[in-house]
Amino acid sequence: MPSKTATASSYSITMRLHTTVDHGVVGEVATAIADAGGMVTAIDVADSSAHRLTVDVTCSAADAEHAAELQAAVAAVEGVEVHKVSDRTFLIHLGGKIEVTSKVPLRTRDDMSLAYTPGVGRVSMAIHENPDDVRRLTIKGNAVAVVTDGSAVLGLGNIGPGAALPVMEGKAALFKRFGEIDAWPICLDTQDTDEIVRAVELIAPGFGGINLEDIAAPRCFEIEARLRERLDIPVFHDDQHGTAIVVLAALTNALRVVKKDVGTARVVVSGGGAAGTAIVKLLLAAGVQDVVVVDRHGALVAGDEGLSEAHQELASLTNRDRRSGGLQDVLVGADVFIGVSAPGILRPEWIQTMATDPVVFALANPDPEVDPAAAARFAAVVASGRSDFPNQINNVLAFPGVFRGLLDARASEVTMEMMLRAAAAIAHVVRDEELNASFIMPSVFHPEVHHAVASAIAGH
Amino acid sequence: MPSKTATASSYSITMRLHTTVDHGVVGEVATAIADAGGMVTAIDVADSSAHRLTVDVTCSAADAEHAAELQAAVAAVEGVEVHKVSDRTFLIHLGGKIEVTSKVPLRTRDDMSLAYTPGVGRVSMAIHENPDDVRRLTIKGNAVAVVTDGSAVLGLGNIGPGAALPVMEGKAALFKRFGEIDAWPICLDTQDTDEIVRAVELIAPGFGGINLEDIAAPRCFEIEARLRERLDIPVFHDDQHGTAIVVLAALTNALRVVKKDVGTARVVVSGGGAAGTAIVKLLLAAGVQDVVVVDRHGALVAGDEGLSEAHQELASLTNRDRRSGGLQDVLVGADVFIGVSAPGILRPEWIQTMATDPVVFALANPDPEVDPAAAARFAAVVASGRSDFPNQINNVLAFPGVFRGLLDARASEVTMEMMLRAAAAIAHVVRDEELNASFIMPSVFHPEVHHAVASAIAGH
Repeated sequence: MPSKTATASSYSITMRLHTTVDHGVVGEVATAIADAGGMVTAIDVADSSAHRLTVDVTCSAADAEHAAELQAAVAAVEGVEVHKVSDRTFLIHLGGKIEVTSKVPLRTRDDMSLAYTPGVGRVSMAIHENPDDVRRLTIKGNAVAVVTDGSAVLGLGNIGPGAALPVMEGKAALFKRFGEIDAWPICLDTQDTDEIVRAVELIAPGFGGINLEDIAAPRCFEIEARLRERLDIPVFHDDQHGTAIVVLAALTNALRVVKKDVGTARVVVSGGGAAGTAIVKLLLAAGVQDVVVVDRHGALVAGDEGLSEAHQELASLTNRDRRSGGLQDVLVGADVFIGVSAPGILRPEWIQTMATDPVVFALANPDPEVDPAAAARFAAVVASGRSDFPNQINNVLAFPGVFRGLLDARASEVTMEMMLRAAAAIAHVVRDEELNASFIMPSVFHPEVHHAVASAIAGH
Repeated sequence: MPSKTATASSYSITMRLHTTVDHGVVGEVATAIADAGGMVTAIDVADSSAHRLTVDVTCSAADAEHAAELQAAVAAVEGVEVHKVSDRTFLIHLGGKIEVTSKVPLRTRDDMSLAYTPGVGRVSMAIHENPDDVRRLTIKGNAVAVVTDGSAVLGLGNIGPGAALPVMEGKAALFKRFGEIDAWPICLDTQDTDEIVRAVELIAPGFGGINLEDIAAPRCFEIEARLRERLDIPVFHDDQHGTAIVVLAALTNALRVVKKDVGTARVVVSGGGAAGTAIVKLLLAAGVQDVVVVDRHGALVAGDEGLSEAHQELASLTNRDRRSGGLQDVLVGADVFIGVSAPGILRPEWIQTMATDPVVFALANPDPEVDPAAAARFAAVVASGRSDFPNQINNVLAFPGVFRGLLDARASEVTMEMMLRAAAAIAHVVRDEELNASFIMPSVFHPEVHHAVASAIAGH
């Protein structure tokens, strides 16, 4: 048995091998990788001479240590020399993942006098005289700023604006791929609420929307609220609202599978941070009556003066039956568990104490609250944030379409009603005949889903 | 005689005509446009039936009024109906001129797990551990922010950040076209010096350079100085430094033509704003000994307490012979006039009072200090900012190569020495056998010029 097994392709390496000219050798390399738990994704002969083959073998490993094990396994094959190992993930990041290109020709002097001086002066004056034209005559109408302070990046924590940049670039690339939107990363060199708010206000004239990203709670709530109040373009915090939309979509379809009603389902949300708070608010707007929020100290109960201001508000909106205790306690009899908290905090056997046909969403990133395979032994429907299990709940299903719809409608804000419609649109992309416990969410590559979300947001 | 004559193509319209099926009619349309001073650039028959032709006629006009005259002249042709008139400049601006595209494939789940989660997390952690890697692994290494507050846009004045956006987009498009640089417009919703400085500082982590643009003097000096001190990436104010580089390049070649020496030439600079100040400082660094700056109140003389702080500094660096009086006075005996001030302030006949073989650069935008054709009657070399006369002095010759060189060298600042080298590089692209009074500057489309500037900046 290998010590580890490759799962996702995030750790993908390419080894350049020099081998003897013996066709059996390449096969032995593939076997060695498989035996060590690796997954071969490509074998290319780069060069062939009378005495030597140069072979590029690309394979996936579980992590860095596993990648080293695979390299050692290959090096141990008779007649093989490992010449160079390159890491595909780093290779594709060299020089950045996005670029700015001109949509207009700049081949001749004539082209330049239309796109730049003197022609552009007339366009500037037209906007000066009629400011609303800026969305029509500039990139503002299709541009979104992906703004972060680097304080809560993925599951990596407070790594700062520079280290956050690859994530924001990736997001910008996804905006284009799925929403035809021109997004630009803005990584702010501050973690001060007032400064973040003011910086976003100051850069707002050039953008048609603001996507806040990976900003730590509770700072993110105030930043979003103040920006919504001050700006005339929509402000969307993807970690809150994007997550809430996809969770509601997944819940809608999970309840379709188990034939329960949103109004009577008992829901436990683990985690009272940015995502948990937004999920709760959207679930309440969607008609969920019974929600209990649990954090590491236990269930949030209204009136508990030990709670932070944000948690006091959350408690006042939830837990109408004033349940107390830890996660294990409040889970008894619940229909739905939604985890946006920490790895491994849900023991699989606790799921047995839930109501019949329990639904478990374990969304902690990158390691979920419970191993999805283990949860599936007890739960009727299991979903996670991971791409290597069924039912991935992925924000990429929401944000491109959300902003596409906002920009198309020239919306000045994103409303709760829009988010409810977006969630319903995602859920309904999965047709009745496709829906089952292993297929509650459409693929991000589904040809209709982003358009459906955009239409729902724009109210078409 | 037509009332006006089309010169540049900035005002280019396309008229869709319905005409009778008579081949003579199209010829009459072309004649009517030419007679009215228009310039036909294209005639396309879009549709043809037994009874009617649909013809698109594209032509250049001097301005909006002239465009209306051309339209009336065409409508007066027998058998012609003007169906629709569209403005090419506005057409190419619809939806903006730039876009953000992904450089990495996002076709499959595997692609996404390399470019986004989970793969991107390893890249973020690598940057967190080794912050210098951010230039290698993200767009920062090739990204420039084109920052404005909209306070001094082209010759249009203080039109604000939204109306400035088409200009900044055009600049971003030129950065890509000539420098292979990914530039993004940042239009700030403030004209407060402290706020501008702080906003640029806050967004700096995502950029490898800052191009300040169209910010009014004297604010621009302080903003630039403070940012240069605080940021570890180069800050370049194109209206100052870009203009200074191309002016020095042009002066170098003009003096080659008239066989005068930079150290003994008497130079008069009209205009003590951002461009004038930067030109003077670069000329002094290049070895010019005798410069007098004139503004609307006359020559700047050291010790004049009526001057602003910025002008007192400028006076202290210049006018060693303490010349006084207006432009007409100080121009007597001068070798070079450089105007970065206001239209029409230089009377052609004053040029006759200058030294032999006078050099006149009339760079006010869009209308120069003196009509270049009129100046050419008296001056040995005439240059302007206009594309419809010989010797256009155009910042596009400098800024793309300057930033290309800065990014390639991972420079933290742009120095006076770099700017001197850049000016020399532009000048030397014009070979001795090409150089003459009508050809002192290379075309922006010259295949070598941007690379030459980049190499000069990087010190290769």
